[in-house]
Amino acid sequence: MRLQNYALGQWVEGTGKFTELFHAVTGEKVAEASSAGLDFRGMAEYARTVGGPALRRLTFHQRARMLKALAVYLTERKTEFYKVSEATGATKGDHWIDIDGGIGTLFAYASRGRREFPDETFYVDGPTEALSKGGTFVGRHVCVPLEGVAVHINAFNFPVWGMLEKLAVSLLAGVPCIVKPATVTSFLTESVFRAMIASGILPNGSVQLICGSAGDLLDHLGMQDAVAFTGSASTGRMLRQTESIVEHNVRFNQEADSLNYSMLGPDARPGSDEFDLFVKEVAREMTVKAGQKCTAIRRTIVPAPMVDDVIQALRARLGGVKVGDPRVEGVRMGPLAGRGQVGEVDRSLRALLGATELVYGGPGSLDVVGADAERGAFFPITLLYDDDPFEKRAPHDVEAFGPVNTVMPYDTVDEAIELAKLGKGSLVGSLFTADDRVARDVALGTAAYHGRLMLVNRHSAKESTGHGSPLPHLVHGGPGRAGGGEEMGGVRGVLHYMQRTAIQGSPSTLAAVTREWTKGAAELSDRVHPFRKHFEELAVGETWHTHRRTVTEADVTNFAGISGDFFYAHVDDIAARTSIFERRVAHGYFVLSAAAGLFVDPAPGPVLANYGLEGLRFVKPVYIGDTIQVRLTCKSKTAKDDREGQVPQGVVAWDVEVTNQDAEPVAVYTVLTLVRRLYTLDGKPYDRPAAVATPEVFVTEQPGTAPARMT
Amino acid sequence: MRLQNYALGQWVEGTGKFTELFHAVTGEKVAEASSAGLDFRGMAEYARTVGGPALRRLTFHQRARMLKALAVYLTERKTEFYKVSEATGATKGDHWIDIDGGIGTLFAYASRGRREFPDETFYVDGPTEALSKGGTFVGRHVCVPLEGVAVHINAFNFPVWGMLEKLAVSLLAGVPCIVKPATVTSFLTESVFRAMIASGILPNGSVQLICGSAGDLLDHLGMQDAVAFTGSASTGRMLRQTESIVEHNVRFNQEADSLNYSMLGPDARPGSDEFDLFVKEVAREMTVKAGQKCTAIRRTIVPAPMVDDVIQALRARLGGVKVGDPRVEGVRMGPLAGRGQVGEVDRSLRALLGATELVYGGPGSLDVVGADAERGAFFPITLLYDDDPFEKRAPHDVEAFGPVNTVMPYDTVDEAIELAKLGKGSLVGSLFTADDRVARDVALGTAAYHGRLMLVNRHSAKESTGHGSPLPHLVHGGPGRAGGGEEMGGVRGVLHYMQRTAIQGSPSTLAAVTREWTKGAAELSDRVHPFRKHFEELAVGETWHTHRRTVTEADVTNFAGISGDFFYAHVDDIAARTSIFERRVAHGYFVLSAAAGLFVDPAPGPVLANYGLEGLRFVKPVYIGDTIQVRLTCKSKTAKDDREGQVPQGVVAWDVEVTNQDAEPVAVYTVLTLVRRLYTLDGKPYDRPAAVATPEVFVTEQPGTAPARMT
Repeated sequence: MRLQNYALGQWVEGTGKFTELFHAVTGEKVAEASSAGLDFRGMAEYARTVGGPALRRLTFHQRARMLKALAVYLTERKTEFYKVSEATGATKGDHWIDIDGGIGTLFAYASRGRREFPDETFYVDGPTEALSKGGTFVGRHVCVPLEGVAVHINAFNFPVWGMLEKLAVSLLAGVPCIVKPATVTSFLTESVFRAMIASGILPNGSVQLICGSAGDLLDHLGMQDAVAFTGSASTGRMLRQTESIVEHNVRFNQEADSLNYSMLGPDARPGSDEFDLFVKEVAREMTVKAGQKCTAIRRTIVPAPMVDDVIQALRARLGGVKVGDPRVEGVRMGPLAGRGQVGEVDRSLRALLGATELVYGGPGSLDVVGADAERGAFFPITLLYDDDPFEKRAPHDVEAFGPVNTVMPYDTVDEAIELAKLGKGSLVGSLFTADDRVARDVALGTAAYHGRLMLVNRHSAKESTGHGSPLPHLVHGGPGRAGGGEEMGGVRGVLHYMQRTAIQGSPSTLAAVTREWTKGAAELSDRVHPFRKHFEELAVGETWHTHRRTVTEADVTNFAGISGDFFYAHVDDIAARTSIFERRVAHGYFVLSAAAGLFVDPAPGPVLANYGLEGLRFVKPVYIGDTIQVRLTCKSKTAKDDREGQVPQGVVAWDVEVTNQDAEPVAVYTVLTLVRRLYTLDGKPYDRPAAVATPEVFVTEQPGTAPARMT
Repeated sequence: MRLQNYALGQWVEGTGKFTELFHAVTGEKVAEASSAGLDFRGMAEYARTVGGPALRRLTFHQRARMLKALAVYLTERKTEFYKVSEATGATKGDHWIDIDGGIGTLFAYASRGRREFPDETFYVDGPTEALSKGGTFVGRHVCVPLEGVAVHINAFNFPVWGMLEKLAVSLLAGVPCIVKPATVTSFLTESVFRAMIASGILPNGSVQLICGSAGDLLDHLGMQDAVAFTGSASTGRMLRQTESIVEHNVRFNQEADSLNYSMLGPDARPGSDEFDLFVKEVAREMTVKAGQKCTAIRRTIVPAPMVDDVIQALRARLGGVKVGDPRVEGVRMGPLAGRGQVGEVDRSLRALLGATELVYGGPGSLDVVGADAERGAFFPITLLYDDDPFEKRAPHDVEAFGPVNTVMPYDTVDEAIELAKLGKGSLVGSLFTADDRVARDVALGTAAYHGRLMLVNRHSAKESTGHGSPLPHLVHGGPGRAGGGEEMGGVRGVLHYMQRTAIQGSPSTLAAVTREWTKGAAELSDRVHPFRKHFEELAVGETWHTHRRTVTEADVTNFAGISGDFFYAHVDDIAARTSIFERRVAHGYFVLSAAAGLFVDPAPGPVLANYGLEGLRFVKPVYIGDTIQVRLTCKSKTAKDDREGQVPQGVVAWDVEVTNQDAEPVAVYTVLTLVRRLYTLDGKPYDRPAAVATPEVFVTEQPGTAPARMT
């Protein structure tokens, strides 16, 4: 089968000499790939001029729904992909990690995109910053999509997850992508990519595919482009120094293999839960994907007195792992991705053997079930022991990217921390201990050298996601040897494809830019109570100034009675006068409740519920005799997904300020309400009530401002 | 005067050939500098082994107080520094920008460090992430200081601000620094640095200084080190490609000069406030620091019909700016920093003149007051006009780093946005318009190419901080040509010197690491109500389970009466039954108030006040007849600064969960209280009350966990 490239919206066959790709188990040729003849410059330009604008027209929520549709579409075709994945040497478990893991990342970002991003084309980062005394000049940060193309260069070990974890964040950010998988397993990437294109879900130009060399693609990158690279440190170093990347300060995120550690705590003696969990995890990490994971455990750091026990237990466990053709019942580890990999791992192992003792497996120990060991890309499970890891340093420097791992002893926790750091920067470390003080010391002691740390004990092990699994919620990447990059981590991963820009101006101008009202911005009003308006009828900035209410002694006394809150500051005149207050003060919760009494419009209407409150500060005491009043302003609006059988609704956040008779604020907060929408997201009227007359919106309280229509 | 270097805790004189430094106004030699003979490798190692550990032992609050003390100390010596600054050619206004601006940045971070960082040695980034259904395995991000050295390479134009804006964030992060100012103005940097050392405020090894070449310093950097570079793009490119920096993925933040734009909105016709503000700002930016600011306006984008008016107005304004010795009364612009700069600006101007028309100043127009134009580093204020900026592109490519600026016309706002982008990445852009729709279009249209955008109108101008001023609150840096870096921006700038690490584990383990209680973590109790404890006596995790209360019809009715909140869902049985609720529901604010009634301990005690509330969610309705109960857990503690005449106090955040009779949560939130401390920050007992017996702390509700003492 000839793999095709997807360029400028077309499936294109390469020219010239094709690279042959082989079945990892049988050694038979399964495909051939070439990207020669592609117009790489044209591909980048197509992404920038066709894909980018199409994606940037969508809001985060629209992009998130697109990711979800894609995830659903791919899920339905999973078993087809498993079939193709067999030729990479993957076991059933390996399929899940790569294929289900990749699709799961799409689902996760589809969900985050709707929960943690606004229904806008840009993201507002952090709060409004006061830049002036009078409040007429303020600042805020927005993040907008890069206007270029994201080039994703992926490693051979995760042909599907590697593509999807990068696509999820780029596409959610609004940036089109060119995917360049490692050629050796690109046949699997191509089959999933083909399904994505067939789905018709992604806009034209938003994704392209290169099966084979990336040619001169990087030479055509500019200041709005970005590269996300996963692979070996040496390749990364070379790519990063491409003339155009250096010249234009192109963002380059790198994720390289690293010498990850797993550590056994000094308390976790043989027979303890943590000891068993540790042995199980180390063995699992050595054999999953035949050890071909950049997050796999390479250095196993063990209290000196327990080294023999650990090695014994690992031998027993590893001895139970059948290596062979994963299609054969009982086989738990398959081959490496190709014969080339076998040669590389073998070379590294020989370098390690110069400094370590072979304690399990190793050259010549291979026992393969259901396949020809000479034709398939098999490698023996191999455990090494370094008895003096501060002196014999090869295991801290040399990585064998296969089922190879070195045990090393430590005397004190401080020493164990120093050993962990000798990896010079890793993606992940893990620790098995029941002692949270040790967990704290090791976590804070090794954090500067790691992107992720897993601390496991008997309470968390059952639900633990494992040492080797990056998760969309958490950052993935590590400093130094691990490449110095960062991917995923929820919102953070999306922002890597966006430009953060500080915006300065008047509150009204910033409200116009961000579509979020901020204190000092123009207030809008048409004399209709905002609780009488549906979601679509409400404008950001719409404001209601309530009637007033004097807080009386009866209020405070009655409120104490109803709430049961007899805190001395409210009810004990003697204690109140010697407290930080001058005399008895109204309950903060009374102020909050009375404020609701002032701003709520009681009759049934579009407001469905008050479901929360944020950022409440009681900024000044309210004393008996004070008179309070409330300003309620529509701060921001976010439509929610429509659900079968549920009235269409949206979240409306209200900026609330309670003031006293001297117009001093006494309480400020944001109220969150659910408000009915008139229309479904696809624009159909839903159970439409009698129309509210379209109001003549006018501006109050900032004379001299040009009418700022904020929606 | 021979400048000295400060290395390994000593003032050291360089050897070999010294570089001569001249007075920018008189051309007389003022100092000479050499760093030859310094042990650069030793300096880096000294920072890592002496300065780093000392800084990392301090909490953010302690580091912040150190910055404040330093800022106060330097403020007292400002006039001495002004005197030295004169030799750089600075005017009085220029002194303020450089010296007061730098000290102001220290003050700003001293304040942010105490408000936005915990009183810990590490920073917790973002919320707890749920990673499992049962909640026994969760994740969170912490940021820890890099364990290496930060090398700060600064530009000649801000000898003080350039040093202090970088020191503020590095030192607050806990990372020691080596400061390498541009040699030409290093005599001013050295004088301020000398004061910092004399103050004795900074720990040994936390700062070192190189006056002269950085020698082979960068060759000794490793994976825990960082470089922050401000200067020309070509130097930055060279430094970034240093072997060791590439090899170890050393963080390299770059901030380069850029071709910043200022734009006049199509609405801002001559005679409008915005027109006048624009002309004033452009003229100011051209002449402040004699145009030697990486943020200065280089491209002035004007509606085509207004070009003549703008040029006329600028000519008039620039004509009033006297150039000469800033010590002479009435002089508003001084010389460039040195004769070398004059030659460079002159070369760039000649390149610009090939594509533009000279409309003000230019070669030969120099008129210098009170100084010898041939000996001082003076340059004429020069305005150019590019009549076809899409074709004649020199002004988008060539920067004259002095009082030189090019006016260019546009027809439509879209065209103006395209012109702005032709700068290929800038630190800042600004727009003068009274039309917020134009502001929005230009801001979102040019944001991807800029690090900061200032949108000015008549309402914000008076308090505006100006086009050219980076602020500690906002990010400083820009993509592409501007270097692709980011500095300051509040917390963000500090995190650039820290490693972000995802931590996974059980809630108790994560609480032990982060010192912040999270749901599912072990609860501590000694049967003493936590409101009876002082700040120091409270342990994170201490929990109180209250008695219960049944919500009755009388409660709902009485609460409506007291609050005045007669929302239909609470009081209208007919409407409530057709709403999203099943029947009448208790007010959310009643639940909140009754919860306080359950958990508050009424007698006078260490709890001074409830001053706020965060993250309230009403997760389930409370119906009449439901019975509620509250769990109150000490979530985190932060001591506040001691103030004269005020009882020492701290903020205690409480995690609150209100549950119903089925143990389902109905409301969750965080309550913020002020709690008395027994001791002042320097450990003196304050007004000590009768001692509370030291409690025997025991663990509840997580049998099988080793006792986790979380403080």
